[in-house]
Amino acid sequence: MGGNVLSEAQRDKSVPVSGLVSRQVVLRSRPDGKVTESCFEFREVPIAGPADGEVLVRNLWLSIDPSVRVRLGADPVPGYLPPFAIGDSLIGLAIGEILESRSPQFAVGDIVTHIHGYRDLAVIATEGATLAGVGALTKVDASVHPPETYLGVLGSSGLTAYVGLLEVATLADGDDVWVSAAAGAVGSIAAQMAKARGHRVIGSAGSDAKVAYLLERLKLDGAFDYHTDDLLGALEEHAPGGIDVYFDNVGGRQLEAAISHLKPHGRVALSGAVSEYDTVETAYGPRNMFQVVSKSLTLRGFRSGAYNHLWDAMREELGGYLRDGRLHFEQTVFEGLEDAPSAVVAMLNGRNYGKTLCRV
Amino acid sequence: MGGNVLSEAQRDKSVPVSGLVSRQVVLRSRPDGKVTESCFEFREVPIAGPADGEVLVRNLWLSIDPSVRVRLGADPVPGYLPPFAIGDSLIGLAIGEILESRSPQFAVGDIVTHIHGYRDLAVIATEGATLAGVGALTKVDASVHPPETYLGVLGSSGLTAYVGLLEVATLADGDDVWVSAAAGAVGSIAAQMAKARGHRVIGSAGSDAKVAYLLERLKLDGAFDYHTDDLLGALEEHAPGGIDVYFDNVGGRQLEAAISHLKPHGRVALSGAVSEYDTVETAYGPRNMFQVVSKSLTLRGFRSGAYNHLWDAMREELGGYLRDGRLHFEQTVFEGLEDAPSAVVAMLNGRNYGKTLCRV
Repeated sequence: MGGNVLSEAQRDKSVPVSGLVSRQVVLRSRPDGKVTESCFEFREVPIAGPADGEVLVRNLWLSIDPSVRVRLGADPVPGYLPPFAIGDSLIGLAIGEILESRSPQFAVGDIVTHIHGYRDLAVIATEGATLAGVGALTKVDASVHPPETYLGVLGSSGLTAYVGLLEVATLADGDDVWVSAAAGAVGSIAAQMAKARGHRVIGSAGSDAKVAYLLERLKLDGAFDYHTDDLLGALEEHAPGGIDVYFDNVGGRQLEAAISHLKPHGRVALSGAVSEYDTVETAYGPRNMFQVVSKSLTLRGFRSGAYNHLWDAMREELGGYLRDGRLHFEQTVFEGLEDAPSAVVAMLNGRNYGKTLCRV
Repeated sequence: MGGNVLSEAQRDKSVPVSGLVSRQVVLRSRPDGKVTESCFEFREVPIAGPADGEVLVRNLWLSIDPSVRVRLGADPVPGYLPPFAIGDSLIGLAIGEILESRSPQFAVGDIVTHIHGYRDLAVIATEGATLAGVGALTKVDASVHPPETYLGVLGSSGLTAYVGLLEVATLADGDDVWVSAAAGAVGSIAAQMAKARGHRVIGSAGSDAKVAYLLERLKLDGAFDYHTDDLLGALEEHAPGGIDVYFDNVGGRQLEAAISHLKPHGRVALSGAVSEYDTVETAYGPRNMFQVVSKSLTLRGFRSGAYNHLWDAMREELGGYLRDGRLHFEQTVFEGLEDAPSAVVAMLNGRNYGKTLCRV
């Protein structure tokens, strides 16, 4: 680890590099309903070493995010990158170590986050070849927190939680907060961050065990299983006076229940709609949108990539909670690139606590 | 008109005032589906003359607003005043002339807007007895514009249009705008105001004649009948590049179409949901809420009553357009208090152009 594994000859991109092979997760077939492991296969891709302005990265951890599901379907989703083609290698957030650098900005041994996940080795251009913001090739300081933290609580999950609460939902003193998918990567951070700031926070999740986790480990003020037939009853029980802020990670019926249970001038930060990602059913439309008018509610969708100016502020606040032990952060880890497809399937089926990661 | 019609004896509230009678529209039965004239009846209510701090007002014009429908049903709507009880006299915005004043703030002959509509005579307390903001007893200058203007373009309709575009949808240079119910009281102002500010504006309405009106009289850049089976096709035809702002007066399927046709970072000002007011059908829920996330959209409901600090700014801008002839303002007038129920029914069935009024 950390050594220069390429010969001078291998550095010449015009010559195929014998022996330098990137193993990648490829879309084999589109899901017919729910995603299964058989939707994926592996491919060995011979790659050239880095040219000028490029680095060679060995991935250490892959971030397994719900949003990957959006690109597995055949239909483009407005605002998202287009669907993967059959036979495409997947991409996603990852953290790795630089094995070779032909850029003055990066040195061998640097730990970097980037968007070239779902593979073990990647050659990455240091400028211009990155997705907006969140996926940019970025050096992180792995001496204070373990590297995988920069995919989770101090990474895009943390930024999404931070931005959703403060910038999108404009969290204010005294607000009562509901977070859905509160045992998940983003939800668990958002819920604990709101708690740390002194708010009353309730959470929903998909099993009795997760509800217990929310109450006992995350110390939320109330929690319930979203499978209940009576979401409004559960909300009324756990947040009797209504809620001011709903941090939505799931959409569908929970969003509808939130609209009914929000107080006047309530705000919803819509971070995702995982209830709609992995299904062939028609998405559920909230039937109480008139309450958005009658109660002067604000519903605001967002992508953390638009808030790159807040990375430092987020890491200062959440890093502080981590050091103080006020932020409990769970990771569901799958071992080896071979298990990345299983990680995707498990995450989409809610079998994760906190951040789902694949250790390469 | 303008004289003092009460004797000294009649001013003593402890003595029933013979001959001073307010004729009022009363809720006779709740609508079973659509509202009909038979839901209402009339009642003669003997009233005492004004006590200290009160004024006696003879109504000149009644504002017939869609929101009255919300209070005719049995179920309370969160954020709204509670349903009228069977046998209650309706209230609503109105403009009238002060016949007698026992308040130093108001003089006989003053023209005032207030919330005591659906009747001919009203005794109104000058302080503390008004609804928030929009319905407050307020003197207007009827020397420049006719008095009924203060129920429409320079009244709550104008404030709703102004606030919705500028404060809620944060209209910005270059934004392309869609207004639904664009031939209606609020929509026709919002559409023309956006045009006057240099935006490309399209509108939807419920008949061929209204579509022609939008194009020929309001000079919109495109217009279509919302009854089409292909709302998205109509939007694509009239706003090929997408829209930045949707001013929503109707909710339902048009809101869903807007969510699909909005560009990234688009904004929706939700001013009403008339498609859901006068029906027994379950409200339609937009099934594409995930696009609120993927395109970072903002959907914001509002009530103009929260923006009373903008009355002067609104009247300056819209009053200027009126004087310049740049704002065409239609009124659908029903004659006589007896016709107020017919006015409500016609307005809810879309048989109006612009503001629906009842001349008392």
